[in-house]
Amino acid sequence: MIGTCSARTVALLVATMAAPLLAQEGQWLMYSGSYSSHRFSPLTQISTGNVAKLRPAWVYQPPGSGSIESTPVVANGIMYVTAGPTMVAALDLKSGRPLWEWTRPIAPSVLNLGFPRVNRGVAVLDNMVYVGTLDGYLIALDARAGIERWSVHVGENPSGHSITAAPLVVEDKVIVGISGGEAGIRGFLDAYDTKTGKQAWRFYTIPSPGEPGSEGWPGDSWVHGGGATWLTGSYDPALKLLYWGTGNPGPDWNGDSRKGDNLYTSSLVAIDVDTGKPRWHFQFTPHDTHDWDANQIPVLVDTQIGGRTRALVVTANRNGFYYALDRKTGEFVFGTPYAKQTWAKGLDERGRPVEIPGMEPSEKGTLVYPSLQGSTNWASPSYSPGTEMLYVPVREMGSVYYKTGIEYKPGTYYTGGSEKRLDEESWGAVRALDVKTGKPAWDFKLPTPTWAGVMATAGGLVFSGSNEGNFYALDATSGKPLWQFQTGGAIRSGPMSFLVGQTQYVAVAGGHALFVFALGE
Amino acid sequence: MIGTCSARTVALLVATMAAPLLAQEGQWLMYSGSYSSHRFSPLTQISTGNVAKLRPAWVYQPPGSGSIESTPVVANGIMYVTAGPTMVAALDLKSGRPLWEWTRPIAPSVLNLGFPRVNRGVAVLDNMVYVGTLDGYLIALDARAGIERWSVHVGENPSGHSITAAPLVVEDKVIVGISGGEAGIRGFLDAYDTKTGKQAWRFYTIPSPGEPGSEGWPGDSWVHGGGATWLTGSYDPALKLLYWGTGNPGPDWNGDSRKGDNLYTSSLVAIDVDTGKPRWHFQFTPHDTHDWDANQIPVLVDTQIGGRTRALVVTANRNGFYYALDRKTGEFVFGTPYAKQTWAKGLDERGRPVEIPGMEPSEKGTLVYPSLQGSTNWASPSYSPGTEMLYVPVREMGSVYYKTGIEYKPGTYYTGGSEKRLDEESWGAVRALDVKTGKPAWDFKLPTPTWAGVMATAGGLVFSGSNEGNFYALDATSGKPLWQFQTGGAIRSGPMSFLVGQTQYVAVAGGHALFVFALGE
Repeated sequence: MIGTCSARTVALLVATMAAPLLAQEGQWLMYSGSYSSHRFSPLTQISTGNVAKLRPAWVYQPPGSGSIESTPVVANGIMYVTAGPTMVAALDLKSGRPLWEWTRPIAPSVLNLGFPRVNRGVAVLDNMVYVGTLDGYLIALDARAGIERWSVHVGENPSGHSITAAPLVVEDKVIVGISGGEAGIRGFLDAYDTKTGKQAWRFYTIPSPGEPGSEGWPGDSWVHGGGATWLTGSYDPALKLLYWGTGNPGPDWNGDSRKGDNLYTSSLVAIDVDTGKPRWHFQFTPHDTHDWDANQIPVLVDTQIGGRTRALVVTANRNGFYYALDRKTGEFVFGTPYAKQTWAKGLDERGRPVEIPGMEPSEKGTLVYPSLQGSTNWASPSYSPGTEMLYVPVREMGSVYYKTGIEYKPGTYYTGGSEKRLDEESWGAVRALDVKTGKPAWDFKLPTPTWAGVMATAGGLVFSGSNEGNFYALDATSGKPLWQFQTGGAIRSGPMSFLVGQTQYVAVAGGHALFVFALGE
Repeated sequence: MIGTCSARTVALLVATMAAPLLAQEGQWLMYSGSYSSHRFSPLTQISTGNVAKLRPAWVYQPPGSGSIESTPVVANGIMYVTAGPTMVAALDLKSGRPLWEWTRPIAPSVLNLGFPRVNRGVAVLDNMVYVGTLDGYLIALDARAGIERWSVHVGENPSGHSITAAPLVVEDKVIVGISGGEAGIRGFLDAYDTKTGKQAWRFYTIPSPGEPGSEGWPGDSWVHGGGATWLTGSYDPALKLLYWGTGNPGPDWNGDSRKGDNLYTSSLVAIDVDTGKPRWHFQFTPHDTHDWDANQIPVLVDTQIGGRTRALVVTANRNGFYYALDRKTGEFVFGTPYAKQTWAKGLDERGRPVEIPGMEPSEKGTLVYPSLQGSTNWASPSYSPGTEMLYVPVREMGSVYYKTGIEYKPGTYYTGGSEKRLDEESWGAVRALDVKTGKPAWDFKLPTPTWAGVMATAGGLVFSGSNEGNFYALDATSGKPLWQFQTGGAIRSGPMSFLVGQTQYVAVAGGHALFVFALGE
């Protein structure tokens, strides 16, 4: 089932996946496919040679009107998928028919706050399915019955806290991030006991006065300092470290009230899974005023650089740079632009950007690349151990950034500015980056900046989608398009793959529907 | 392209279709496929022998959250499909991508009236697309650009008028029915000039005092007499007669205020297309107190009965009986039960039901078959000239009918009762009826009473769907299932078929999405 992977990459693959997960070959056990977040399927039945025969096997449409931004999880022979604002469905793998559907009633007052009404997925362990809710709860459902087992209140929704990310289960803990960076929350990452929901720890991404990093937060600016943790992180079982991205500081575009670097915003933080304490951090965009959250999925890669095997965490950041960090120490290994950016001359030897003056948001407007939505956003990249490429969903777009005054009002946008996107000159791509150098190998161009996740497979394929509804397969080596299907809905989800018996399936959501594909006869 | 039809049925087929329509072979020019409402595709590429290879070619999902109950129209090489509350999309036939999308802004006050928020399709003529709106307007759109050309106010929405049916174009007129029978409207059928929107005529389904039939409407009961015209009718170009079904009287379940037969409710009315005057009528359920609208699509069939060629209009009625009428005179030819019914001993020689006493709604509740939703409902049947069968979407269910007091309040439910459906003992079917006798030839059973339309084809197939999301093909002769696909959404729409070049496609909506199928390689 390892297909085109070399023996060496198989070894690496095994090293970066949690051992118990390998026992369930052909499943897709968590949001990003594995702890290393490769979003790589080792399945080979669907390959460059036969992908042209791929066709829908079944479709699932959730009740209600929510669109699907979720990556399904397949565990214990059942698929779990979510839809906005907050619902979970357990689906039969062969027929696509729901075994159960669970919908969280969401009050109009919650929906009317105006923040994204999405849910991106679940975590599963044994007989429990874990889901965060738009109104700020973490809930454990019985995996077979869809009945609530426990519920904990993670964050106050009226002040802008919500949960949209898929939780991550590590040993006996459910790790869950919080959304609300645009509402001036103080970000945190939480861990709860899988069986009882009892809180194990909370790590605040914004230090309180006296803590390390607090010098960048004068007065009470830290209270609304942002640093949300709104996407799922990765995990290295050998180091027992979680890798979690943090969002923009608050307010987003007016940094006057928050001097200094504003740790730990727009950063990657490595957190001890047992204690919730940070071991190291790396800040991509110090004193961010462009909304360049660093929540993109961190990808754990073991590779040879300069004749030396490096245990890396790599990421294509929203700020336009690709970074490779030592995942044990946080040491900056190298970084390089991977998309159009006009705000920094480059990175210094420690990976800190050498900023170009005058690129701050201003009253009259400042044109900067990338746009507020970044060179990439929450859509997941994928890493293939076979090609050693990171396949990144890229957004090539600039924005004119405006700065305004700002006052904090609970549960409203706390941004201190506005933005005009250069939609007409924008485009998108799936971009293949050599993980050892960050240099692009190929582009598959898209008419508009993409919101679709990517999945590479051992069949030599890269799957992704477009805002225009196409779901497609590319040759992982050349980027050549090999197959496509029009789903009719913008693809804002991540593809995944699983086995039923000897049959490989590929799933992706487009618009309001989940599509599951298999080879035709 | 006529395939399995005999030469005789080809001749009949030609006779019952409007001649100009035949010029555009492979299109689907109106809601019911043709003026005779056979909902029969003469295409033969997809057949009993190869339907197993049918697979989705593309999917379309409309913007917003409305589900699709529409049958697409294909004309001039473009597909037009609608979704609720009121939107129209023009789609490219090969890719499924929208050429334009037009959405009617519908005020919350309209949506909040609580009546169905659906739209079932358009009519197309030359460069115009005609659509009725939930807020009671008929609008002509430019077929190429989706721009509004004219708009007329058909009915006051605050008093319960809305348009959900597809209009019908006959020569220079757009014929459009009105919904609102549950709101105590006075039903009517309207004709407007295709080019200007100027009203040509209005036919009220409830006579005003002094008109024929008014004796059954004491006092001002006629003002809220119901008789909505909420589905599309049929047309015989030779007779220049429209055949249009009318809905229940108002109030639905409490008939105390409306003595007599309550003409022309729960009836079929044949209307002169030039003048809007009724030529004949046939009432299926006199003094209806069970909400048995007669809006089901009337089907025009020419066949041999008793050695004589009869020009018939046939219908499987919501009240459980199948009727064959002479379509020139309205003469009752024969009628027979086609589903479980417990309210009538049979029909007399003029087709009037011989009612069983005590079957009226009552304070303590009265169990009657069929249920309020009828033995069939708005989902379209299909007639195959090849098999001479009418394929009916059947709902086998009873209800306990309750009678209450009633007061008219504009824009609210004016029903005078309530209902408890026997869901647990209910089921559904596609039922093949011999049009010459009304006797069932076969059943394809479904787990729940169906809302899916039916299409028969010259390829020997019958297509339909289920509430459980399956879209399937049956052998038209035996009812044997040959193929299915799980769409993930309840199928509450009518299938249709069209050609692009030499390739036959089949389309159906399930849930929020439109699926278009073709044969795989």
